Amino acid sequence: MAVNLHDAADLRAVPGVRIASAPAGIKQNLRDDLALFEFCPGTQIAGVYTQSHFAAAPVQLARQRQSTSRSWVVNSGNANAATGAPGLEDAHAVCRQVARLLDISEVQVQPFSTGVIGERLPVAQINGALEKAAAGLNEDGWLSAARAIMTTDTVVKGYSLQCELDGETITLTGIAKGSGMIKPDMATMLAYVACDAHVTYEAAQHLVSDAAMQSFNRITVDGDTSTNDCFMFAATGCADHQVINGREHPNYFVLLRALIELSRLLAQAIVRDGEGATKFVTICVRGGRSSDDCLSVAYTIAESPLVKTALFAGDANWGRFCMAIGRAPVPGLNPDKVQLFLDDVQVAEGGLMASDYTDARGSAVLAQDEFVITIDLGLGVSSETLWTTDLSYEYVRINAEYRS
Amino acid sequence: MAVNLHDAADLRAVPGVRIASAPAGIKQNLRDDLALFEFCPGTQIAGVYTQSHFAAAPVQLARQRQSTSRSWVVNSGNANAATGAPGLEDAHAVCRQVARLLDISEVQVQPFSTGVIGERLPVAQINGALEKAAAGLNEDGWLSAARAIMTTDTVVKGYSLQCELDGETITLTGIAKGSGMIKPDMATMLAYVACDAHVTYEAAQHLVSDAAMQSFNRITVDGDTSTNDCFMFAATGCADHQVINGREHPNYFVLLRALIELSRLLAQAIVRDGEGATKFVTICVRGGRSSDDCLSVAYTIAESPLVKTALFAGDANWGRFCMAIGRAPVPGLNPDKVQLFLDDVQVAEGGLMASDYTDARGSAVLAQDEFVITIDLGLGVSSETLWTTDLSYEYVRINAEYRS
Repeated sequence: MAVNLHDAADLRAVPGVRIASAPAGIKQNLRDDLALFEFCPGTQIAGVYTQSHFAAAPVQLARQRQSTSRSWVVNSGNANAATGAPGLEDAHAVCRQVARLLDISEVQVQPFSTGVIGERLPVAQINGALEKAAAGLNEDGWLSAARAIMTTDTVVKGYSLQCELDGETITLTGIAKGSGMIKPDMATMLAYVACDAHVTYEAAQHLVSDAAMQSFNRITVDGDTSTNDCFMFAATGCADHQVINGREHPNYFVLLRALIELSRLLAQAIVRDGEGATKFVTICVRGGRSSDDCLSVAYTIAESPLVKTALFAGDANWGRFCMAIGRAPVPGLNPDKVQLFLDDVQVAEGGLMASDYTDARGSAVLAQDEFVITIDLGLGVSSETLWTTDLSYEYVRINAEYRS
Repeated sequence: MAVNLHDAADLRAVPGVRIASAPAGIKQNLRDDLALFEFCPGTQIAGVYTQSHFAAAPVQLARQRQSTSRSWVVNSGNANAATGAPGLEDAHAVCRQVARLLDISEVQVQPFSTGVIGERLPVAQINGALEKAAAGLNEDGWLSAARAIMTTDTVVKGYSLQCELDGETITLTGIAKGSGMIKPDMATMLAYVACDAHVTYEAAQHLVSDAAMQSFNRITVDGDTSTNDCFMFAATGCADHQVINGREHPNYFVLLRALIELSRLLAQAIVRDGEGATKFVTICVRGGRSSDDCLSVAYTIAESPLVKTALFAGDANWGRFCMAIGRAPVPGLNPDKVQLFLDDVQVAEGGLMASDYTDARGSAVLAQDEFVITIDLGLGVSSETLWTTDLSYEYVRINAEYRS
């Protein structure tokens, strides 16, 4: 059902990163549901984490240990969220096992979980499977890790790309999972990106935050924010170039551009594999007085059930767009200045239907499985873009049947 | 499909109010789609109107003419919204015809429309049908008017009740329409309430605003706010009691209590007839530091697609509730203090599953077609209640097939 998305295939190894996965039987099936990452000494790690008040136990630990981290351990099938003090102890127990196996200290291990909320983690099973995983660590484990972290995903999500810093080729590889409960708030479901660039800890944090704002923080499937969202970035420093020590460094934007490109591919892959998605929709709002103006309108449209069902039906329904724009909290919005385009077809100008617009032209755009909705607010010069899906019967079926 | 709701039957006449309906053929069918209300001289009229930036042409006129109003003209089938200056002229033309027929001035006519957005009103058809309606005005027209204003409604919505002021029996009768695009913002889809109480213009405005805050402004079906929402209140003054001249008058709260009771019945009828609804759900959030705290959490739950699909499935899914509570914008929310109840079954305490909770007990509550979800935030003493529905396949079908 994913929109123009295929399983990841060739993922490049990143010097300094070893990975393994293993089956822990968390949901009683035999597939790999555990991934382990080990980074070489000197790696800088940064992340952005869910802003949910109910941030899961592993997220609380991962956030604390960012500056000391040398390892990630990720399980699917159980989110270890809303599990209180016992859940926190479970996360500690898993980290202790990783520390023992990799001969590092516990604060060098960041834990991550995704799956059902509110149930205890099967720690003994996980710790058993970790023995096997630790023995199998290797540089080519990205693809199997991408598979191990999936939940309702139907497609394995991962990309690699390269950029050049001081004549040195840098490799970036990233994997992600996520399909529903997707409106990341400062981060996304789960995404892991590593590269062999040489950056300081502060620069790593800037890079991951800046990239999140233009990728994972610009997607929504259903407006629901997970308790476990994390977007993690590791820079091993194995490449030989001048260290990037902050936003002012001339190579900062070279690396950021590559990181944004990779992060957008991963974020868009999550939307393409959105629960029940039949359309991949880009919403571009321009002419706002501020980024907030544009995001208010874009999210109101992207999360309106009436707009989403119209997109599913391929109904170029100007009425539902102006309903959604009309309720967006944008002070001073003036309907008489609003324009709407579906790809390059102008649907509305001056707040009402364009004189040469016909339903046939609008419907032809929406009959495609990918298109761009552009709204011009006519108030200023800001613009924002985000990516979303339609709302189909299949979304209801998946979520009426699956316990998240 | 409506949840425990039946067509209105006996609606009491209100002294001073004459009503008629007629078929104008706006959507090419033969049912009545036009309602006309005429009020006796001295009637005080007040309303609350949509806050949408795209407030429809009739809403703009109705808002201006509140203090001079003596008549309401309502059509279904076409919302006359997002129609710009031509739409405004159409609304004027209909009002002029009503003024001519009732021998009043145009500023004494308030127009209302509901139906498809973005299309021109068929003024000639409407004005023709108004001739017939004006000739048939009578005190017993409430039920046929309730039928004439329906769009995707499946049930005719109307109630009457009485209260006593200074020993005099006062009659309140109200009708409403609405089923989807329901998250009224200061008002609801369309609701009309009249009574024969004697109140000043200022008191009428306080009454309708105070009642809206405890009825129409506490419901949501899909979080989508219409361009045409209006909740109108008329007090004809035909009853013989001391005039109610403000919030301080001893009878103000007697009348307000009756108006709130009637408005809640109408508002809840809209939710019970919500598009695709299979459950009628009351969400009560208590223990907030402010009304805003409570409403943030209540609306986040009521509008979360993941919670709504779990309600449809009858899945007592603590994970999805804490996901939604976790993303609500409540400063200082502490998961360790949160409690959740389904009717009287405690699901969670201290932010995690209650020790004696079992899925069987939670599922038994959700198997009913009506139940109460109570969340205690443990932060303060405020509380708020709202009413909503689940999200079913039928919601998607209705909105993928109907053009609103």
